[in-house]
Amino acid sequence: MSGGQSPGLEVVMPRRCHPIACALLFAGLVVPLAHLAAAPAAAPPAAAAPGAGALAFSAAELEQARAIRERALGDDTGYEVLRSLTSRVGPRSAGSPGDPRAVAWALEELKALGLQNVHAEPVTVPHWIRGECQVDLVSPWPQHLVAAALGGSVATPESGIEAEVVPVTNLDELSQGDTTRFAGRIVYFSGRMARATDGSGYSRAVVVRGRGAGEAGKRGALAVVIRSVGTDRNRLPHTGSMRPEPNDPRIPALAISNPDADLLEDQLASGRPVRMRLRNTSQWADSTRSANVIGEIPGRERPREVVVLGAHLDSWDLGTGAQDDGAGVAIMSTALHLIGEAKVKPRRTVRVVLFANEEFGLSGARTYARDHAGSAAEHVLGMESDLGAYAPLGLHSRVPPDRLPAIRVMASLLAPLGVEYRGNDASGDADVGQLLPLGVPVCALDTDASEYFDLHHTANDTFDKVDPLLLRRNVACYATLAWLAADLEGGFGRAPLGRPTGR
Amino acid sequence: MSGGQSPGLEVVMPRRCHPIACALLFAGLVVPLAHLAAAPAAAPPAAAAPGAGALAFSAAELEQARAIRERALGDDTGYEVLRSLTSRVGPRSAGSPGDPRAVAWALEELKALGLQNVHAEPVTVPHWIRGECQVDLVSPWPQHLVAAALGGSVATPESGIEAEVVPVTNLDELSQGDTTRFAGRIVYFSGRMARATDGSGYSRAVVVRGRGAGEAGKRGALAVVIRSVGTDRNRLPHTGSMRPEPNDPRIPALAISNPDADLLEDQLASGRPVRMRLRNTSQWADSTRSANVIGEIPGRERPREVVVLGAHLDSWDLGTGAQDDGAGVAIMSTALHLIGEAKVKPRRTVRVVLFANEEFGLSGARTYARDHAGSAAEHVLGMESDLGAYAPLGLHSRVPPDRLPAIRVMASLLAPLGVEYRGNDASGDADVGQLLPLGVPVCALDTDASEYFDLHHTANDTFDKVDPLLLRRNVACYATLAWLAADLEGGFGRAPLGRPTGR
Repeated sequence: MSGGQSPGLEVVMPRRCHPIACALLFAGLVVPLAHLAAAPAAAPPAAAAPGAGALAFSAAELEQARAIRERALGDDTGYEVLRSLTSRVGPRSAGSPGDPRAVAWALEELKALGLQNVHAEPVTVPHWIRGECQVDLVSPWPQHLVAAALGGSVATPESGIEAEVVPVTNLDELSQGDTTRFAGRIVYFSGRMARATDGSGYSRAVVVRGRGAGEAGKRGALAVVIRSVGTDRNRLPHTGSMRPEPNDPRIPALAISNPDADLLEDQLASGRPVRMRLRNTSQWADSTRSANVIGEIPGRERPREVVVLGAHLDSWDLGTGAQDDGAGVAIMSTALHLIGEAKVKPRRTVRVVLFANEEFGLSGARTYARDHAGSAAEHVLGMESDLGAYAPLGLHSRVPPDRLPAIRVMASLLAPLGVEYRGNDASGDADVGQLLPLGVPVCALDTDASEYFDLHHTANDTFDKVDPLLLRRNVACYATLAWLAADLEGGFGRAPLGRPTGR
Repeated sequence: MSGGQSPGLEVVMPRRCHPIACALLFAGLVVPLAHLAAAPAAAPPAAAAPGAGALAFSAAELEQARAIRERALGDDTGYEVLRSLTSRVGPRSAGSPGDPRAVAWALEELKALGLQNVHAEPVTVPHWIRGECQVDLVSPWPQHLVAAALGGSVATPESGIEAEVVPVTNLDELSQGDTTRFAGRIVYFSGRMARATDGSGYSRAVVVRGRGAGEAGKRGALAVVIRSVGTDRNRLPHTGSMRPEPNDPRIPALAISNPDADLLEDQLASGRPVRMRLRNTSQWADSTRSANVIGEIPGRERPREVVVLGAHLDSWDLGTGAQDDGAGVAIMSTALHLIGEAKVKPRRTVRVVLFANEEFGLSGARTYARDHAGSAAEHVLGMESDLGAYAPLGLHSRVPPDRLPAIRVMASLLAPLGVEYRGNDASGDADVGQLLPLGVPVCALDTDASEYFDLHHTANDTFDKVDPLLLRRNVACYATLAWLAADLEGGFGRAPLGRPTGR
């Protein structure tokens, strides 16, 4: 997943918005629900206005869903899919050599998993090249710091930049006091991300990654260095995309690892002026072609109606994109594989969409929403896995209140896996959330995010960090939910687009 | 601490040798005790041949030792000393710019702590320059691997080396089967270090770091890559010194991180040939000058007789040397500081020796042993802290059996801190162990080493990894032991140099 916020943006927050969804919402990566209330409502699918029976599940349907769940809990297909992706493709950021390799891998892998209608849909993606960066403290005590450019950072001059460091905690502090003190200096943002099961520390901390350089640049800063947005204590910086506004001055922006941030702060605490030298060679190249990769298990009765399972195929460049979002790719692809192997196929089609370029602006999701807007009414439900293969804890939905009984039955099948139903307040995740303005109902599965931000966007996002049993559990959740959602005779109608209602 | 082994070297192992001491012993870094039996026994100090009273502690002495222990448990001087060393000096490998900075820092810091006779004693140290290295898998699936040169590695040709990878688990496997299969190839050692409270996995795993390149070079290999000798799963390679023998061919030797080793092994498991490209620019420079830094709390009655507390001032270059061995420097220096602040100074002098260049061949310890051989008889006891500021668990001694009652009393004062007496089998640690052949009795404190090898010799060896309460506890142990040892009227005689005896 990506992230980034716009400070001061006024949006009406859903009452029980998931904290990470909230971060995306602030960032303009998902559409605030209050804005959607006025959107033209898409026509309900043909099967709407159903009777009570059409909104419930039969005993046979529940039995089939349970069988898929149990099969998933004993199956390591997903783990091996992820091993293959991380070992044979590895880093695959938009426009990089790994990007087309990932597309080719996905086409081959989805076919090998028995999916049908496997194809790629073209997406234009931006192409930022990291280059190299060096950060050194020059005085009072020389030290080398471990750093990484933030996604979208411009380069320094070839000879680098050397200047005094001015520390601030966050964007608020940047706008207080004597704001001329930043001119000609390097601004250092020291705010530290808090660890939380719901990942809520991210939305608070990530704002400086998105807007720090823009806001400091407006005040004459030469460059920005931030404490990594991450909960670990490893000497590995966390990258991630910036969210510049059109009139922002473009200045270099780098993240240093948490231990390096501690070291810098120890020197700042001495009270002596701290001078830093930094050099960065990042650059933008021309936009290029990538693709969303799609595969399906066709429905037995209404194959044109689809339940969408989404994940993003791209990753950051520093690691091999195991948890972000190779795990989602493996989980959702395997969920379809198991549905395809089930004794009874569901009424409707289940479609996996492996989105291009989530990290650098949701190119794949925006393209899919545009290209498939005409069939939005045939999109019955969307779900996305983009928070790692950690323990599933809670299910959120956004469906019309009269469909909540069906959602509660679906959730009850996940209760043995430790999942509780948490409300009808889902706002969609980054990619599938792009379908919400089109009226597509969504479900969202919370996972335990307490360790995710230890490795998120770092070189440490590698295969060894994934627990195969937890990955199985995620596959079980999505396969169960998807089979039932695709089979529910009456479907889910259109997503309510105002404030969330009901529980 | 360093390490490295000579395969096939026949030594008589002490019965209860600490596993890490055993590794050093194999490496030739400490002297096998069996060899010492024939060494000329140094003359006992003047105060030897004592009566029973001279071998016990008075109530007042025990009371003073307890007071120091309690003071240490509430004192963060050591933690702040370590913060200063890691922040103001940082990496300080032999011959690097940090080496003289560390010496200057230590001279200033020991004076600030109230120590006397603070001075530097010159030591000639080797100077290896890391340069840069890159490791990439070329086929079957291109990936970049995170690597670091092993200490002492030679460079590759400027254009690098590209060759097929031949995996072996360890040195035994290298000598089995068709040994012509290594010629013209890159040999990969896949053995994985096991986690253990006593650090015993290290002695088994480190042998390939010391001897892998030499042995593979003899069989025509172009280069060696090893799985990092470490217990973590971070994308941070573990460096450490090699132990070449005079006739070994010199070939480049690099360590890859554990996640990178997993990735390489996944590709090897495909059965397809794996080709690797590597480039390394390490080089040797001329030997240079460093120093052991020494400070004392002079004894109130016999200031020429000394208890030595040792740690090493140098560190590896990748981290800031917090646990290895900044922690030892801080612990031992602070132990002296607290003894200096005690109401009653001990009879004899307590001396801290911050040794130069432990990591690259014990230059400082060998020089100290040579330069102070003439006063070996006045060295009453030696102790060393070089396994991090982790929980102290056990005390070993090597003293004449008739001095064991005093050692047991000393150990009893550490029992409330969780330390048990573990036997009269200490072989000295790397640096202070150089004094054992001179007949100097030693004590050694086992700490919980289960996490030490997560960060040992990596960029992750930084200040944030040190628990201030555990550091206090180490200071308490050494200050208590040192005060008592320096005050024991009859002293400890000369170290028994045969197999360990008694408990």
